[in-house]
Amino acid sequence: MISIGIRYFYPMPVSNHSEPGVELMKLHILKDDLNESIQHVSKAISSRSTIPILSGIKIDVQPGGVKLTASDTEISIQSFIPVEKDGVSIAEVIEPGSVVLPAKFFSEIIRKLPSPNVTIEMTDNFLTWIRSGSAEIQIVGLDPDEYPLLPEIEENQVFSVSGDLLQAMIRQTTFAVSTSETSPVLTGVLWTLKQDRLKLIACDRQRMASREAEVVANAELDLHNVVISGKSLNELFKLIPNQNMMVDIVVAQNQVLFKMDNIMFYTRMLDGTYPDTSKLIPQTFQTELTIDTKKLTDAIDRAYLLSREEKTNIVKMTLKDERTVEVSSSSSEIGKVTEQIEAHRMSGELISISFNSKYMLDALKVIDSDFIEICFRGPMQPIIIKPEDHSNMLHLIMPYRTTN
Amino acid sequence: MISIGIRYFYPMPVSNHSEPGVELMKLHILKDDLNESIQHVSKAISSRSTIPILSGIKIDVQPGGVKLTASDTEISIQSFIPVEKDGVSIAEVIEPGSVVLPAKFFSEIIRKLPSPNVTIEMTDNFLTWIRSGSAEIQIVGLDPDEYPLLPEIEENQVFSVSGDLLQAMIRQTTFAVSTSETSPVLTGVLWTLKQDRLKLIACDRQRMASREAEVVANAELDLHNVVISGKSLNELFKLIPNQNMMVDIVVAQNQVLFKMDNIMFYTRMLDGTYPDTSKLIPQTFQTELTIDTKKLTDAIDRAYLLSREEKTNIVKMTLKDERTVEVSSSSSEIGKVTEQIEAHRMSGELISISFNSKYMLDALKVIDSDFIEICFRGPMQPIIIKPEDHSNMLHLIMPYRTTN
Repeated sequence: MISIGIRYFYPMPVSNHSEPGVELMKLHILKDDLNESIQHVSKAISSRSTIPILSGIKIDVQPGGVKLTASDTEISIQSFIPVEKDGVSIAEVIEPGSVVLPAKFFSEIIRKLPSPNVTIEMTDNFLTWIRSGSAEIQIVGLDPDEYPLLPEIEENQVFSVSGDLLQAMIRQTTFAVSTSETSPVLTGVLWTLKQDRLKLIACDRQRMASREAEVVANAELDLHNVVISGKSLNELFKLIPNQNMMVDIVVAQNQVLFKMDNIMFYTRMLDGTYPDTSKLIPQTFQTELTIDTKKLTDAIDRAYLLSREEKTNIVKMTLKDERTVEVSSSSSEIGKVTEQIEAHRMSGELISISFNSKYMLDALKVIDSDFIEICFRGPMQPIIIKPEDHSNMLHLIMPYRTTN
Repeated sequence: MISIGIRYFYPMPVSNHSEPGVELMKLHILKDDLNESIQHVSKAISSRSTIPILSGIKIDVQPGGVKLTASDTEISIQSFIPVEKDGVSIAEVIEPGSVVLPAKFFSEIIRKLPSPNVTIEMTDNFLTWIRSGSAEIQIVGLDPDEYPLLPEIEENQVFSVSGDLLQAMIRQTTFAVSTSETSPVLTGVLWTLKQDRLKLIACDRQRMASREAEVVANAELDLHNVVISGKSLNELFKLIPNQNMMVDIVVAQNQVLFKMDNIMFYTRMLDGTYPDTSKLIPQTFQTELTIDTKKLTDAIDRAYLLSREEKTNIVKMTLKDERTVEVSSSSSEIGKVTEQIEAHRMSGELISISFNSKYMLDALKVIDSDFIEICFRGPMQPIIIKPEDHSNMLHLIMPYRTTN
């Protein structure tokens, strides 16, 4: 067995003492359901895997249905296809058994089969036959005993979040993780849970995004320093069902398991201690501004176009008077973009501040509120951006030091 | 003026003897029409241009409308926006004039302007102001006198093709041009015209595609060795209007001009003599097969999936008996795909032949006929593929020499 650095627990498949020509696994299944399941687990297949068997999908045919598993050692995904769903027959198991098939070819060929019905049958030496309509495919399979087992997860620390809230929380924070490997822990999102409040925080050296929400948890459950890689969360995001279904989240020693309808998503936690970001956030401000989210976003987007040509992304925001905010960007080579927007409310000192417009746009685009509050403490101090109508979200952006 | 290796003729713009602060060009225009025109000409902008002014779009504001021009020396595109279209006012010219603006930034900023109305105004030194709603943009423009003039086209050799036929002819041939620069003339499509029959031919060393059709031309017009680069034709394809409108095609000494509604597309002809491909096509055959196009395409597509994993693309077609065609591909590492399809008609000797399945799929996908005819002369001789119901199209594929 190949060790991938995690502890395994998994019922061992019945060993295949093969007699040549004997059916060691056989099932009939609907193409569309098989295809959907393959698409789900394929998100864990890495094209750069150095462990040959991990370029395959493990297929376990059991009396109750078919389980597909794929892993890149960082994340593992398991999808279960029951023999029957809502009274409709999806699969018929003739002979239980297991095999590992090459993910890319298996996935592509299933999608292109001519008939909605597929028969999969393994004979000796893991040689697997796929039949559908007039097409007959033989695939050289691999020994499922060689496939790494999924991690043992003790279900002591469990909480639940609705699918759409979980998607929102991931989308509103994960963009801000660091892309640099110099501090690996910053490439992840910090999850903390205290008294039913789940909080996600992502930051690099120039910005921070945080989002919190009430979830379904035992009041005693207290989680800290659970850090999950941004890359894994982006893959998880795609698997979360659109329907408002609950996702159960199980936190074990070094793994987190997300349990969705028929899909199990395992991800490794990142090592290292996540920095305390609470000290970064100023508590008092010089200036507070409330402004229309869309108008500000569009104006910064136009200024960003010019700043991007300069490869600096620098955009300046100037509070001209208590009603007027000017957004501008200029370049000696290309020209200048200037725009004045009306402030909804403003209090405190007038200020002029420069920032990375790409970071500002990233934050503005995930704020789900018609008006935002921007708080300034000075031209060299962090900028705080919050939705006007709730305090569940906070974005922080460090300003640029510019000469003009 | 920068010479780009072609002869120019073009009315010189009125020179801009600029007094500082004076309006040298001013117009009001609808954003959507301007944006559409910019998208059209932008197809001629090359990101790798070494001539700085060619990274710009030339804007000529004339009393009757606005003309935009872009060029990469290989192709040039001109788009005209009339002041009025179908009785609706599109632009209002306050002061005619010309300027060159950086294509990428100009194109992006126009698309993102806040209001449907745009005012463009040039003051001195080609500094251009764009105003729309609350947004004000200054762009550092370039001298339009530095912009290369478009080639002189004498309209002696002209013929006309409907837009959808022209699109079909380009789509059905251009995929087969050579991608290798060792024979530059083969990277183009040969256009010949004789007695109202237009014929397009593309080939590399392993395949050939040809398509002919009747067009509107003077019976005396005789064109040969007009070779247009496949890359240019793919750009032209995107500009051809969907409506069934006629496209006038003007062939001059080393240029071809395609005249569409408000768009002029100029392309340079490729140098060199296109080879005589007629000798490649066998006149007699051992075997002739008629078969369902879609069934054959799908079966080869499945076999292709496996052959592609092997990086050979080799698929074998075996005529088993007078009703049965077997399509197969095999690989010792991955497995085997086999499929039997019923032949619609077959005559001559049974044959087994191997070919590049990617080339076969490229040809099958552009054939607009439910049944195709495939003609074989022997396992080492060219394969001919034709639609069953007309003789306007012919594809040729060279077989692979395989050991089994």
